[in-house]
Amino acid sequence: MRWARFDNNGTPTYGIVEGSDIQPVRGTPFGTWEKAGDKRPHSAVRLLLPFEPKTFYACGLNYAGHVREVAAKIGQPAVLPPNPDVGYRANNSLIAHNEPIVIPKDATEKVQYEGELVVVIGKQVKHLTRQNALDAVLGYTIGNDVSERTWQKSDRTLWRAKNTDTFAPMGPWIETDVDLGKLETRVRVNGKELIRFPTNDMIFGVVDFLVAMTRYLTLYPGDMVWMGTEGATENMKHGDVCEIEIVGIGTLSNPVVREA
Amino acid sequence: MRWARFDNNGTPTYGIVEGSDIQPVRGTPFGTWEKAGDKRPHSAVRLLLPFEPKTFYACGLNYAGHVREVAAKIGQPAVLPPNPDVGYRANNSLIAHNEPIVIPKDATEKVQYEGELVVVIGKQVKHLTRQNALDAVLGYTIGNDVSERTWQKSDRTLWRAKNTDTFAPMGPWIETDVDLGKLETRVRVNGKELIRFPTNDMIFGVVDFLVAMTRYLTLYPGDMVWMGTEGATENMKHGDVCEIEIVGIGTLSNPVVREA
Repeated sequence: MRWARFDNNGTPTYGIVEGSDIQPVRGTPFGTWEKAGDKRPHSAVRLLLPFEPKTFYACGLNYAGHVREVAAKIGQPAVLPPNPDVGYRANNSLIAHNEPIVIPKDATEKVQYEGELVVVIGKQVKHLTRQNALDAVLGYTIGNDVSERTWQKSDRTLWRAKNTDTFAPMGPWIETDVDLGKLETRVRVNGKELIRFPTNDMIFGVVDFLVAMTRYLTLYPGDMVWMGTEGATENMKHGDVCEIEIVGIGTLSNPVVREA
Repeated sequence: MRWARFDNNGTPTYGIVEGSDIQPVRGTPFGTWEKAGDKRPHSAVRLLLPFEPKTFYACGLNYAGHVREVAAKIGQPAVLPPNPDVGYRANNSLIAHNEPIVIPKDATEKVQYEGELVVVIGKQVKHLTRQNALDAVLGYTIGNDVSERTWQKSDRTLWRAKNTDTFAPMGPWIETDVDLGKLETRVRVNGKELIRFPTNDMIFGVVDFLVAMTRYLTLYPGDMVWMGTEGATENMKHGDVCEIEIVGIGTLSNPVVREA
């Protein structure tokens, strides 16, 4: 099932994506819901963030190729993380499918995409096991962890390198029926594919992180975990359109503008 | 004015602290409100977190003495941060005044308090200036940034060192009338004072952080910034009671238990 959220004449409303239509519901996928109102083409509505996230967890370095690329870019030796130590991002940075990534005027040209799988938590849970961890997951969406590489190198934290307003596009919807092993991530800028990789080829997988995190942390409905990205990334510039496709989920597309 | 939030027969309700009483209101201090219902002694109600925070920002190393102490504890040279680079904590870790700090059974004995000023944002703002930055602040409360020092040293991020459930006591209320220059922080364990310091003696002050952050980030009502702590900190153990007083705001008190 695909859960979207859309602007219903000014009221944020959840809907179920059925082919090219969206079926509005009353309620939310995190609680009870029922179909309410007429289907409409989802191309005719403005999609919103697919949910209002609570805590924004992010795995950071979680693909071996990307660890080596980032290390080279910031001039430090590549060290694969020995444990699933999760990090954080901030909700101010989130934008929906089709909304513009705005590059601040004092940013360098090194503003880059990172295509990521996003795990959406559906239940309040602690002490998950490898056997039941995925039961806590409502579904999966797509994130673009936009990063300004000079700030990532210069600052003590990632606050502006990755949390500048508009630097976290997410969407277009939540897919609940996912076989992690079959997902493939493809990143395109202006229609040209720049990388594709098996989404689940992570250093620590979804189950690893959820089990480790919930040994100490309670997760809540609406929390989310961005799982990191693979390989080299390239600069985006004013006028570009960046698409993150995860085959089996959908395609997140965002135009890029530089602040005047 | 002092804003508290309390358990009103199962309904979280804001109230104004008037001496030893609490005056319930309808509404919230972030929007419109009116007095509603009878005063009662605030000792007779269970205080909740003084508000439901959105993004949990934390300044980390922001007092010169503490930077030197932490550096010595983790065996690295002390470097004062050159810029106000903010960090993040997670809301799962928050507990209210009087609720127990629960030390996980596999934590070491190095679980320590950090008494902090908490800035509560009242408005949606960006591009604050030094002149108008404090207009965005609704008021101030008190935080205890509980830290497991061995995890702080061993892990790639602070996820469990500082974000384990119950590791962020906050309260007892929000004080809106504050002269930052006159505040003094005092930390007591079992009634014995272990440190006192001028709260505002920060490397980067409240205005510095708010101006720097909002150059790139939108702040929203209910966002908060924990401003860091000063000096050495000491271990807390099962059975202790830790009090963080900021003279001019109030006293946050929490018992400590070790998980059985």
